Amino acid sequence: MPKVSQAHLLGNITALAEIGAIDDGGCARLALTDEDKAGRDLVTGWMKQLGLEVCIDAIGNVIGLRAGRENVAPIMTGSHVDTVRTGGRYDGNYGVLAGLEVVRALNEARITTRRPLAVAFFTNEEGARFQPDMMGSLVYAGGLGLHEAYAAADKDGLSVGDELRRIGYLGATRPGALKPHAFLELHIEQGPILDEEKVQIGVVESVQGISWTEYTAAGVSNHAGTTPMRLRRDAGYLAASVNLFARQLAREMGGDQVATVGALSLTPNLINVVPNRAVFTVDLRNTDEGRLKQAEARVRAHIAQVAEAERVDVEAKVLARFEPVTFDAGLVDRVEHHARALSLSTRRMPSGAGHDAQMMQRLCPTAMIFVPSVAGLSHNVKEHTEAADLVAGAHVLMNLTLELAEQ
Amino acid sequence: MPKVSQAHLLGNITALAEIGAIDDGGCARLALTDEDKAGRDLVTGWMKQLGLEVCIDAIGNVIGLRAGRENVAPIMTGSHVDTVRTGGRYDGNYGVLAGLEVVRALNEARITTRRPLAVAFFTNEEGARFQPDMMGSLVYAGGLGLHEAYAAADKDGLSVGDELRRIGYLGATRPGALKPHAFLELHIEQGPILDEEKVQIGVVESVQGISWTEYTAAGVSNHAGTTPMRLRRDAGYLAASVNLFARQLAREMGGDQVATVGALSLTPNLINVVPNRAVFTVDLRNTDEGRLKQAEARVRAHIAQVAEAERVDVEAKVLARFEPVTFDAGLVDRVEHHARALSLSTRRMPSGAGHDAQMMQRLCPTAMIFVPSVAGLSHNVKEHTEAADLVAGAHVLMNLTLELAEQ
Repeated sequence: MPKVSQAHLLGNITALAEIGAIDDGGCARLALTDEDKAGRDLVTGWMKQLGLEVCIDAIGNVIGLRAGRENVAPIMTGSHVDTVRTGGRYDGNYGVLAGLEVVRALNEARITTRRPLAVAFFTNEEGARFQPDMMGSLVYAGGLGLHEAYAAADKDGLSVGDELRRIGYLGATRPGALKPHAFLELHIEQGPILDEEKVQIGVVESVQGISWTEYTAAGVSNHAGTTPMRLRRDAGYLAASVNLFARQLAREMGGDQVATVGALSLTPNLINVVPNRAVFTVDLRNTDEGRLKQAEARVRAHIAQVAEAERVDVEAKVLARFEPVTFDAGLVDRVEHHARALSLSTRRMPSGAGHDAQMMQRLCPTAMIFVPSVAGLSHNVKEHTEAADLVAGAHVLMNLTLELAEQ
Repeated sequence: MPKVSQAHLLGNITALAEIGAIDDGGCARLALTDEDKAGRDLVTGWMKQLGLEVCIDAIGNVIGLRAGRENVAPIMTGSHVDTVRTGGRYDGNYGVLAGLEVVRALNEARITTRRPLAVAFFTNEEGARFQPDMMGSLVYAGGLGLHEAYAAADKDGLSVGDELRRIGYLGATRPGALKPHAFLELHIEQGPILDEEKVQIGVVESVQGISWTEYTAAGVSNHAGTTPMRLRRDAGYLAASVNLFARQLAREMGGDQVATVGALSLTPNLINVVPNRAVFTVDLRNTDEGRLKQAEARVRAHIAQVAEAERVDVEAKVLARFEPVTFDAGLVDRVEHHARALSLSTRRMPSGAGHDAQMMQRLCPTAMIFVPSVAGLSHNVKEHTEAADLVAGAHVLMNLTLELAEQ
């Protein structure tokens, strides 16, 4: 029987984390930077050492292919190796390196599966440097054209196309040319639920739809001492009212609806001046598209009402909008089955964060496996998952991969 | 009969506005900068041309003295000639230059009053570079020690003492050595009430007490998609709730209570992260000290309640606190009398902004005269008052000065 090695898995995670290392054990490998290139080079080297055939596509996605007994559609697993600016060492990297650990274990046990196996890492999942996020998998699944992706520029005006070429990861293969039989993504939860409930494996049924809107409210700046309340046109007041409304909305709607005002800037931002301008964001998520649309409509209606009462003009700009994704029900069942077969506790759950798997579901049956994040910390140098949980997740991935690879 | 000259008054206002001029007719003469020095030099030169004896005190206040028939306590008028970074041409300057115009008119009419007359401009009224604001008049009235005032530093570490010496306005006279019989300050309203009600003269009965507090809320930053609402410790939510509470509080308390959240900064200020830190200010004002204290207590209680429910820690720092000031009732009556005698419409009102006059009330009977600010704009390059209103205010000042100077 093949066996996942904790030493190998953690050794690789630690080695990759040394590239772009920042304080407190965190990582900074923004997509297509020199650090990302160094991380890619390391992982690609490991793929070759494991005997995988490495293929780089035109958006920089890297796929390591292990031949099967038959030349049919492969079972693919993977995630990403780019990070946010102050990221942890597990987000993305864990899924990729666990995939390689499965390959190593199969090599060691001299097992050849019927179907080929593929371990992939996708370009710019985080979207911290270039938008949209999940770019490589989105292009792979046909949801974004290559030229549009190439044109995406960072805040210094450097483009994805130029940066891919510069770091040597602009490959020749057409993204999506290899269509998997099934895709599996193993990932840390990035939320507190598994840790709080002391559950070992999250069986991910769906990914929440995401609605990101930036609002710009324009009122009139006035002296805070001399302007009667009734004459105020306070852009900051409108922004504050949206924050409270978002909380109330999420509570009323219940279920998995979340709503966040994360960013807000006031102008002139002085203690004694009524703000004439507020730029703020609203992040809404729900696993149900109808309910997500309902949340969006209610936020819009609230803003319209307050804007009229306060005589403030408001403009809205959609920054991102992804519909919810439901994973393949049969595959989700098999995640649960294999976790339980290993005597691991499980919990069905949606993913609140976006993942490459949600793009791959457009191409083939897809599922995700979550392991706990201590205290739910993520996009944070303190992101942590216990070694036993990392190994457990890799076990589930291996066993499910072996089953699927014989289909 | 002496007569205020519109040409002279507006000519001087325009000439002074050319020093530190910025776009759209505004002025930038931050206290004790080279621009402030140039403005001071111009006004001091005019004082000398009018035959006034110029006296500079140890905090840089400049007093031009016109001898009376008797050597008794003078009638003093004045304001300030420093501005905020993007200020208008009337705030402060108008009161000083109208005082000089009264002197010019009396000179022209060859009138000598019983009491001496004094026209003053006080150092650093605005507080835009050095805190506290109203510094020169506060020192003059004995509310702040010279050494404490000298030690106040700007954001580059330059001190009031050093900057006074550098620009040549560190005088020898003890501030407050000249105790007036009465003090009058003519000023633009800096608010919308007179303009909105089409009233020509504001009879200022009081200055609102000011309470400025900066709050720092510390929560936990978390992923906006994966963190259930019930687990959030959102510092931005607390700040937003204070904004809405401030509005509700001012509405409930009514009267002249105003409440403003003007400044707010979130950390990390990202669309998809629950803010772990919010630094925001609350500006509360009321003409009644008891009611101002009540407002402060209610804001504190609200914050304590939300902080507990949201599990956010909050620290408070008092940035400024001035009790309300009530001007001399008899003098206020005389402002109203002289305005009406000139067939000008009047309205009794509090001042929402702070003024040097509120410090002078500690020393002697004091009153203020307001003229309209178009659309209430102030601390704004678009600050404007119609010429007829400027002249009307100067007339009231002159006639009241003449009455007081014979007492």
